Amino acid sequence: MKFARLGDVGSEIPVVMDGDRYRDLRSITSNIDGAFLASDPQEVVASALATGSLPILEGAGEMRVGAPIARPSAVVCIGMNYAAHAAESGSAPPTIPIMFMKTPNTVVGPYDTVEIPKNSVKTDWEVELGVVIGKRVSYLESPAVAGDYIAGFVTANDVSERTFQIEESGGQWSKGKCAAGFNPTGPWLVTPDEVDATDLRLRSWVNGEPRQDSSTRDLIFDVNFVLWHLSQYLVLEPGDLVLTGTPEGVALSGRFPYLKPGDVCEIEVDGLGRQRQEFVAHSGETNV
Amino acid sequence: MKFARLGDVGSEIPVVMDGDRYRDLRSITSNIDGAFLASDPQEVVASALATGSLPILEGAGEMRVGAPIARPSAVVCIGMNYAAHAAESGSAPPTIPIMFMKTPNTVVGPYDTVEIPKNSVKTDWEVELGVVIGKRVSYLESPAVAGDYIAGFVTANDVSERTFQIEESGGQWSKGKCAAGFNPTGPWLVTPDEVDATDLRLRSWVNGEPRQDSSTRDLIFDVNFVLWHLSQYLVLEPGDLVLTGTPEGVALSGRFPYLKPGDVCEIEVDGLGRQRQEFVAHSGETNV
Repeated sequence: MKFARLGDVGSEIPVVMDGDRYRDLRSITSNIDGAFLASDPQEVVASALATGSLPILEGAGEMRVGAPIARPSAVVCIGMNYAAHAAESGSAPPTIPIMFMKTPNTVVGPYDTVEIPKNSVKTDWEVELGVVIGKRVSYLESPAVAGDYIAGFVTANDVSERTFQIEESGGQWSKGKCAAGFNPTGPWLVTPDEVDATDLRLRSWVNGEPRQDSSTRDLIFDVNFVLWHLSQYLVLEPGDLVLTGTPEGVALSGRFPYLKPGDVCEIEVDGLGRQRQEFVAHSGETNV
Repeated sequence: MKFARLGDVGSEIPVVMDGDRYRDLRSITSNIDGAFLASDPQEVVASALATGSLPILEGAGEMRVGAPIARPSAVVCIGMNYAAHAAESGSAPPTIPIMFMKTPNTVVGPYDTVEIPKNSVKTDWEVELGVVIGKRVSYLESPAVAGDYIAGFVTANDVSERTFQIEESGGQWSKGKCAAGFNPTGPWLVTPDEVDATDLRLRSWVNGEPRQDSSTRDLIFDVNFVLWHLSQYLVLEPGDLVLTGTPEGVALSGRFPYLKPGDVCEIEVDGLGRQRQEFVAHSGETNV
């Protein structure tokens, strides 16, 4: 099952995909948020689809595609979770998951234009498998039970500014991870029954040229281990977003130029949909 | 003006202090949240106080004191912002603000019991001046304008687990900052007209013995500089909480033992109120 949210920022309409059509979910929920995801919605939605009670959303093809989830209470990220990316970043592979965070207001739609931050010279892409939490996660017994806490999976771009992240940060990465628009998410939230998270191809392109091309097979710490591990340190809530790390092939490697105004970034996780963002110069305005 | 929130978790009632009485704000707002704080509420509340239209909240003395703000969209923290604390932590004073984050679900009331996380051996206290955002902060022109974006100030305890933060983190501090209950906040949100944030005494005690005793005079980067600086990297929203750093006198220094079950931590920022938390052992349950 694939959920999405269509419409202008702040007034997105929740939908479920039915083939290539979008069916309006507003008779069931006002949003694809934590409360909805925690309600185990698949059975109710499947039943409504079967009885034909969900109308087709007219004009969906002309609507903006939002992130497929409402703003989370937290966006928790794992760093250096692919060995080849750790190497290209100048680091040894970690022996324990490295956690940092993005502000939840970075979450935007998969095709939204992204402003390169003012004073940025090193804006970079990062295709990632995103995990959306379905039930409160705290002190899980084992990685084996983690799947029960997952509402679905998303394509996510963990856009990063490397000067902010590394050179102006005192070593704490979040400063380079939180600019407005720095977390394109979606287009779909795909439920776990349709996803084998252990073997998903992840790719990115800039202006049509390939950049990243790896698989979640290469994750150092897989999805279930990550959720179990995080659950020993914090509480994840329904609707929260966990980004599992990016594979090799980013500009930080030195093999590719950083993003400049006019560049088009595309990223895709197989089965979870492809994003496309144009990067533009910041308007230069202050107090905006 | 001092705002507070009284009542059980999730159903706190917004109030304003009138001397030592609490007046019910529900005729004006349902919560002390970003929307309320962004509305420049002081004039409306002052007028309602003057006309006597706000009833006294009966039974307030027996009610739990919640955090004085609704759950923020982000809790952004500055690390190593007092030179003596940087030294006791084994670090040189930073030349640029160091930013990390706590999950917003760490924010709890100032007298709530705090569970020491399972597997914790180094749970530590950190008294801090907290700044609550009143207007959207993005690319401020200068530190001098930052005051216009502040809704008020709070006492905050940036509770930290040092093993999680430093030894099991790969160097990213957030893993030791996000356990449930790790951000006691309040008791009051005090509006800027009543606060000189450049000269506030901050103190902490454990079981009545003094630990920290410093002043915001010693901040390396003051409140206005911090907000201006952060605004170059991310967007802060009304109701967000910025913790400005802790002074020397924490257990990480090696001078004091870490917190153990039964310990009582008190922290106070002059004019912003004193907190008191009992630390207890984790229940040991999984999946809670």
